[in-house]
Amino acid sequence: MGNNLLSGKRGIIFGALNDMSIAWKVAERAVEEGAIITLSNTALAVRMGTVAELGKNLNAEIIPADATKVEDLEMVFAQSQDILGGKIDFVLHSIGMSPNVRKKRAYDDLDYNLLQSTLDISAISFHKMMQVAKKMDAINEWGSIVALSYVAAQRTLFGYNDMADAKAMLESIARSFGYIYGREKNVRVNTISQSPTLTTAGSGIKGFDGLMDFADRMAPLGNATADECANYCIVMFSDLTRKVTMQNLYHDGGFASMGMSLKAMNQYNKSFENEFKDENGHIIYG
Amino acid sequence: MGNNLLSGKRGIIFGALNDMSIAWKVAERAVEEGAIITLSNTALAVRMGTVAELGKNLNAEIIPADATKVEDLEMVFAQSQDILGGKIDFVLHSIGMSPNVRKKRAYDDLDYNLLQSTLDISAISFHKMMQVAKKMDAINEWGSIVALSYVAAQRTLFGYNDMADAKAMLESIARSFGYIYGREKNVRVNTISQSPTLTTAGSGIKGFDGLMDFADRMAPLGNATADECANYCIVMFSDLTRKVTMQNLYHDGGFASMGMSLKAMNQYNKSFENEFKDENGHIIYG
Amino acid sequence: MGNNLLSGKRGIIFGALNDMSIAWKVAERAVEEGAIITLSNTALAVRMGTVAELGKNLNAEIIPADATKVEDLEMVFAQSQDILGGKIDFVLHSIGMSPNVRKKRAYDDLDYNLLQSTLDISAISFHKMMQVAKKMDAINEWGSIVALSYVAAQRTLFGYNDMADAKAMLESIARSFGYIYGREKNVRVNTISQSPTLTTAGSGIKGFDGLMDFADRMAPLGNATADECANYCIVMFSDLTRKVTMQNLYHDGGFASMGMSLKAMNQYNKSFENEFKDENGHIIYG
Amino acid sequence: MGNNLLSGKRGIIFGALNDMSIAWKVAERAVEEGAIITLSNTALAVRMGTVAELGKNLNAEIIPADATKVEDLEMVFAQSQDILGGKIDFVLHSIGMSPNVRKKRAYDDLDYNLLQSTLDISAISFHKMMQVAKKMDAINEWGSIVALSYVAAQRTLFGYNDMADAKAMLESIARSFGYIYGREKNVRVNTISQSPTLTTAGSGIKGFDGLMDFADRMAPLGNATADECANYCIVMFSDLTRKVTMQNLYHDGGFASMGMSLKAMNQYNKSFENEFKDENGHIIYG
Repeated sequence: MGNNLLSGKRGIIFGALNDMSIAWKVAERAVEEGAIITLSNTALAVRMGTVAELGKNLNAEIIPADATKVEDLEMVFAQSQDILGGKIDFVLHSIGMSPNVRKKRAYDDLDYNLLQSTLDISAISFHKMMQVAKKMDAINEWGSIVALSYVAAQRTLFGYNDMADAKAMLESIARSFGYIYGREKNVRVNTISQSPTLTTAGSGIKGFDGLMDFADRMAPLGNATADECANYCIVMFSDLTRKVTMQNLYHDGGFASMGMSLKAMNQYNKSFENEFKDENGHIIYG
Repeated sequence: MGNNLLSGKRGIIFGALNDMSIAWKVAERAVEEGAIITLSNTALAVRMGTVAELGKNLNAEIIPADATKVEDLEMVFAQSQDILGGKIDFVLHSIGMSPNVRKKRAYDDLDYNLLQSTLDISAISFHKMMQVAKKMDAINEWGSIVALSYVAAQRTLFGYNDMADAKAMLESIARSFGYIYGREKNVRVNTISQSPTLTTAGSGIKGFDGLMDFADRMAPLGNATADECANYCIVMFSDLTRKVTMQNLYHDGGFASMGMSLKAMNQYNKSFENEFKDENGHIIYG
Repeated sequence: MGNNLLSGKRGIIFGALNDMSIAWKVAERAVEEGAIITLSNTALAVRMGTVAELGKNLNAEIIPADATKVEDLEMVFAQSQDILGGKIDFVLHSIGMSPNVRKKRAYDDLDYNLLQSTLDISAISFHKMMQVAKKMDAINEWGSIVALSYVAAQRTLFGYNDMADAKAMLESIARSFGYIYGREKNVRVNTISQSPTLTTAGSGIKGFDGLMDFADRMAPLGNATADECANYCIVMFSDLTRKVTMQNLYHDGGFASMGMSLKAMNQYNKSFENEFKDENGHIIYG
Repeated sequence: MGNNLLSGKRGIIFGALNDMSIAWKVAERAVEEGAIITLSNTALAVRMGTVAELGKNLNAEIIPADATKVEDLEMVFAQSQDILGGKIDFVLHSIGMSPNVRKKRAYDDLDYNLLQSTLDISAISFHKMMQVAKKMDAINEWGSIVALSYVAAQRTLFGYNDMADAKAMLESIARSFGYIYGREKNVRVNTISQSPTLTTAGSGIKGFDGLMDFADRMAPLGNATADECANYCIVMFSDLTRKVTMQNLYHDGGFASMGMSLKAMNQYNKSFENEFKDENGHIIYG
């Protein structure tokens, strides 16, 4: 029941782990819209997750690969073109992980080798993907490349740690490479800045529940779900957005444009209710 | 040959004048995507332009109205619901005009009565449109409202004059009303910041040709056309972008994210070619 | 005990009402830094407030004027040059008021005549001030003009109402006029986006206390006070910031660059403490 | 002939090479404003440049150190406190270099080991500096840390290459660490986004002359010089800007807020003058 928005198009979806993944939803929707795709994730993720099931359902081949390795990416683009029968039209980069966060290293006590990994996995992999694709001339004219980002690239959220710097770099790479890929091949490159989403990745972040509640009350339309994010990705892959490039597109129910909503303020104000009362419930002044 | 993206939806398109108008293209595409629509513009514009022809082609009724008048807007929303048989799903605001520009008043010699008109026509009409619609409860849940804007809202371009301030206010209204309309009715409100476009409106702006050339060489994908803008509007009206609100969306081939492109720089550098040469073509130093 | 940063400079301070006003503090600091100044506010404000006292303390003449009237502004610039003995070096615009807010008109029920007043008082007065000054050639080369703004110009805060649109327009005027005044007279124009501040103006805004608490916990350095804001204005008037123009400068302890602080989140989370507990204090799931 | 703005303060200036360096000017101005300082740069830079001369003039000790090495930075902070007799009040990070640019690797042909160096030198060194300082508790309450950045962090400029991504990351680090350092020690962290400046570093960038001319004609106040940048740094180190943090501050004569100036457009338009003319100088249409 799609709209044939990707009819005849070939895509590669990086980063589907299980049915909570945004990449999983994007894969499903892309096929529903008429695309043929391949799926890629690390060998470990393929083993740990349930992406095999997704591949079967969508008739999509899974290509295990480490997106931080140039030779692996070359293999993914070579095999994908082989399997899908031609050049690629769209790519989703849904990859991000901070070993510093995993090891509970605070941002003022970073391990710099781990920071290197955070950047390599979460940002530089995006550059490698595009450099490899461009050198192989693996992407069709007017192709579309999307990476998933988060508002932490612009505004600091406690506990998001070195991932904030990685996302800032990811968005910069989208601009820098978007310029080159655009002028030479008319390929567009954008990031989608998604609401906090309950995925396996998201759930690792400190204080995530409170944050999701706050974001949901701040955003006039509430948090965007993974399914809704998939729809937005489809739109960005379709031919209807050909002149949108080098952008970071907020998909968050309005959160990023809010300073304070009545709903969030009301909830916040409840926090004071018991603070200034004595044992009889009378408010204490002064 | 559309994708049924607006199947069953009802829309109102404000601002189509002739076949160069972005609104004209949006109207055509909306119908192609399955929508039924009404068209509105001032009585004068209806007489001067060729919107009657468009109405005939699209089987769309034309409702002459002054978008700066609350009672006119009430009439447009009442009649449109009547004609289209139900609440409205999408609205395009493509209205803007500066009497100060028309009368060649420089920005440091503004006529403040004319500034009032600039704001009233180009920005406040957008607020009135939404206030009227909301009071009449004329828009369906998850409806979508789009206004056209320009990068001058963020960055100063000589000659754009008080329209820059009007566009800044327009984008602010999109955020302010987007918050209210979102939280209460799940209606989203966005602006699309379009490339300079050769419309009847655009062609009035001072030095527009040079600017269009520069923008085209700066943007890696070149300037976005009116047709491409129409596609982007369709996407924003469709159900695939339900959680995007309070945003200003650049649709400009990448222009807004550029500092300087090689192509524009090369052209710029040509300007010096004959400047520092003597009569024999030798470069003069010092 | 100043630093002589404004030694020999002449300034006009618009908007001091009483000793809670930011403009009041700026006036005091400007004189402390060696400037001579005049003060201006509406005749009503001069009567209602205590600016006479300030004038006496600072040996500064008070010029009652309505900043929405061109002829009044002409008079202020003429008299100020007369009194101070030469062209003006710096101007503070600390003027803003929304009759819609005063009359408790919600943002989706605006009175459009009152909106007109909001814009006229809070934004267009800034344009008029500069147009008048430039026509009279009343400002010295490398002069500096500052208006006070608020983050609501970029991000929606419930209850701030049409003042958000006015502040967005104010900041746009700073850019638009800053371009003209810069290229022709090397005069710079900026806005300072100040923390919510307990002034007579600020205290009228709905839910202001909760908001101030939230902003204070979000900002790593806490809210900026009126005194601190005055220091920042001095810096912007001084010769040390000559190449800063067309900017909106956040002076808010870091608030605008925050997505969520630990301190604000902790407070927010307290709001749930009693929500999901039964009468015995046990947490209720589901 | 300073204003005593840094009287009694202790600072460390990283990155002075020779008298074209911004860091050199900052060092001179800091001392002029009453500060005592140490200077640091790599051993190679100390040998190649003329910083010894600066040290002598300012009576400032030079501490050779590699800012990418944690142990070197520990040494700089330890020795500086020793030499200056107490905790540090301000730090300037003026460090940046791309080996990819040096080796003329295009952005779509990056060497990833060199990218690693670009990031390490130009961005991560800033994090290391702060992490080291904070662990050693080497900075006084209300201290101020500034790094120099460039508009390429937000907008793509051809030829700026991977330095754009490094600057984006640098600015993100300023926010991320600014939050932590602010909430725990009231130390503020900002970046200054400076005009293109004719330094030894700047002069290596491709097409730099044309770009400087363009920037100068775009900016209403013209490009900011190194001397003017030094003044702005002083202001950010002084006690007058205590509540400004996590900001990227444009110091560029207005460039970043411009879309197109009349002056730049006029120059650009000259480039067409000879293009459409035949051998007799007649304009060729069609």
